[in-house]
Amino acid sequence: MNFTGLALAEGPETARIRAFLDGAGVDGGRGGAGGTVTLPVGDDAAAFRPPRGTQVVVSCDASVEGIHFRREWMTWETIGYRAAASALSDLAAMIATPVGLVVAAALPPELDVEIAAALGRGVGETASRVGAEVLGGDLVASPGPAFLDVTVLGYAANPTTRCGARPGDELWVTGELGGAAAALRDLERGLEPDPRARRSFDRPRPRIDEALWLGERVEIHAAIDLSDGVMRDAQHLATASEVALEVEAELLPAAPALDGFRRSPAGERLLLGGGEDYELLLAVPARAMRETKRAFADAFDLPLTRVGSAREGKGLTVRGRVDSALPAGFDHFEVGR
Amino acid sequence: MNFTGLALAEGPETARIRAFLDGAGVDGGRGGAGGTVTLPVGDDAAAFRPPRGTQVVVSCDASVEGIHFRREWMTWETIGYRAAASALSDLAAMIATPVGLVVAAALPPELDVEIAAALGRGVGETASRVGAEVLGGDLVASPGPAFLDVTVLGYAANPTTRCGARPGDELWVTGELGGAAAALRDLERGLEPDPRARRSFDRPRPRIDEALWLGERVEIHAAIDLSDGVMRDAQHLATASEVALEVEAELLPAAPALDGFRRSPAGERLLLGGGEDYELLLAVPARAMRETKRAFADAFDLPLTRVGSAREGKGLTVRGRVDSALPAGFDHFEVGR
Repeated sequence: MNFTGLALAEGPETARIRAFLDGAGVDGGRGGAGGTVTLPVGDDAAAFRPPRGTQVVVSCDASVEGIHFRREWMTWETIGYRAAASALSDLAAMIATPVGLVVAAALPPELDVEIAAALGRGVGETASRVGAEVLGGDLVASPGPAFLDVTVLGYAANPTTRCGARPGDELWVTGELGGAAAALRDLERGLEPDPRARRSFDRPRPRIDEALWLGERVEIHAAIDLSDGVMRDAQHLATASEVALEVEAELLPAAPALDGFRRSPAGERLLLGGGEDYELLLAVPARAMRETKRAFADAFDLPLTRVGSAREGKGLTVRGRVDSALPAGFDHFEVGR
Repeated sequence: MNFTGLALAEGPETARIRAFLDGAGVDGGRGGAGGTVTLPVGDDAAAFRPPRGTQVVVSCDASVEGIHFRREWMTWETIGYRAAASALSDLAAMIATPVGLVVAAALPPELDVEIAAALGRGVGETASRVGAEVLGGDLVASPGPAFLDVTVLGYAANPTTRCGARPGDELWVTGELGGAAAALRDLERGLEPDPRARRSFDRPRPRIDEALWLGERVEIHAAIDLSDGVMRDAQHLATASEVALEVEAELLPAAPALDGFRRSPAGERLLLGGGEDYELLLAVPARAMRETKRAFADAFDLPLTRVGSAREGKGLTVRGRVDSALPAGFDHFEVGR
């Protein structure tokens, strides 16, 4: 069905929600790896059966136009993709297998129905990448900016928390950092970002497969996803685990977009303070990654880097910084003012 | 801690979310009846263990300021309460036991932190009434209206859908209809609603206990919650079950706020078209309620009323109407224009 040219307010409610959910590929998806969906979207609720002996893991992530995204900076597919990736990244941080997600959107009624479909497609693209099904959705009118909330559901025999880091643990990071922040900085300045940075920003990969792979091979004491930047999120991990963390700035794996200026204050700020790369920070026993690092790089074509360690005490220390001023990190409410 | 006088944008992020979730009574609640929460809110995600052999049931419900609620019409507690009640009502319609909910809010940054706490309290009030825990939350800034999305999680051995009504079934309704719509009509006209109607509007009860009680005693073929009004929702049930439904207008249990004018076109419109009472419409085998109706009224001090039946065919017929013009039902996008 082609809805192009029809504003959201003009069509019947079912056609709107249908366009949104069809976009998300509700009947598609490669299906959860073991959590069987027993009742798909379409009734008052959906249902699934988690594998025996597992716990259900749940998290949500909201984003708002003008605060978390701008229509001028990205397509509606990208807006949907990023919202779902951000939420699914929390399942990666729990080393949980995704089952599905539920997505609520509020859109201005004058928008074309095709926009609801595009938003749904973006959400569905992320979901199908990690084997999650779209289990439900709500689409309502907004008299202001567009809103999006994605709730993700998965399972794990024993979810990994932020709390288990121990003195002596090593800190490791998946992938590269600062790429998404570099793209965002350019967009804010009206510049076209470096294509690789743009890709990190538009299509961040929730590290689900990587997390599950590592969880099978290494004893992971604690994990967090780097949604707010390594500076902030390492601090969260230190607080939750009641340990002191030390990160070596020079060890941090910088995205190629930072080539040539990673040791400048501006580059370091992106590297330490830039979030939305959705890489993982892991605390593992000393030397636990020795046999694993190479195999990980081979399996995922992605670096896995030791960046620091935990010891008795509290708080976060970043060694070898160029600029000792702490980046504030990202506060949506400050941006929103 | 007393945040009064502090705008949301002024405090640290953790204090804001804390105020919101403390309001929701995250550590309180009477606890799920059997689905044990294994990891409470505070990490990247929460976790729970559904009882063996059950399916996890999930649904979400979004509401937006200016479309679904207005600050002038109700307190922030009421806004939170109603959003959670609306979402939990979908679990009642599945005859599912609630475990918990996840709530995302977007609020204008100039609002007082106490407002986030009040919103949380409202959500927590509904949750604790039905034994659900608040499993997670996100609080972000909105440059426009306030926005709220509640995702509910529960479990059932065999969730009841909209699809199972069969020819020969009887249709039953819990409680009384039209009260919430009568209050809304008065509010829209700048009048103070009848106190009983106001109560139906402000504090609708998701019929969780009632649904579970009935589910243990009666074979329920199909169920739906009356969020959009009996006219619309009976039509959804007829379509999903591929049967024809007949509702007798005179049998519908009208709320006391409709006394004296339920047989007028205006009263009938509220009775048939008014949603947000969140009562349940159930399809059960003929005579299945014979032994149950009285016990239900005794147990819940609530009427349980036969309102029609199902037969071969399709669509909905309402017999004995005063006004044959079909009420349009509620379309958020039309309201939003």
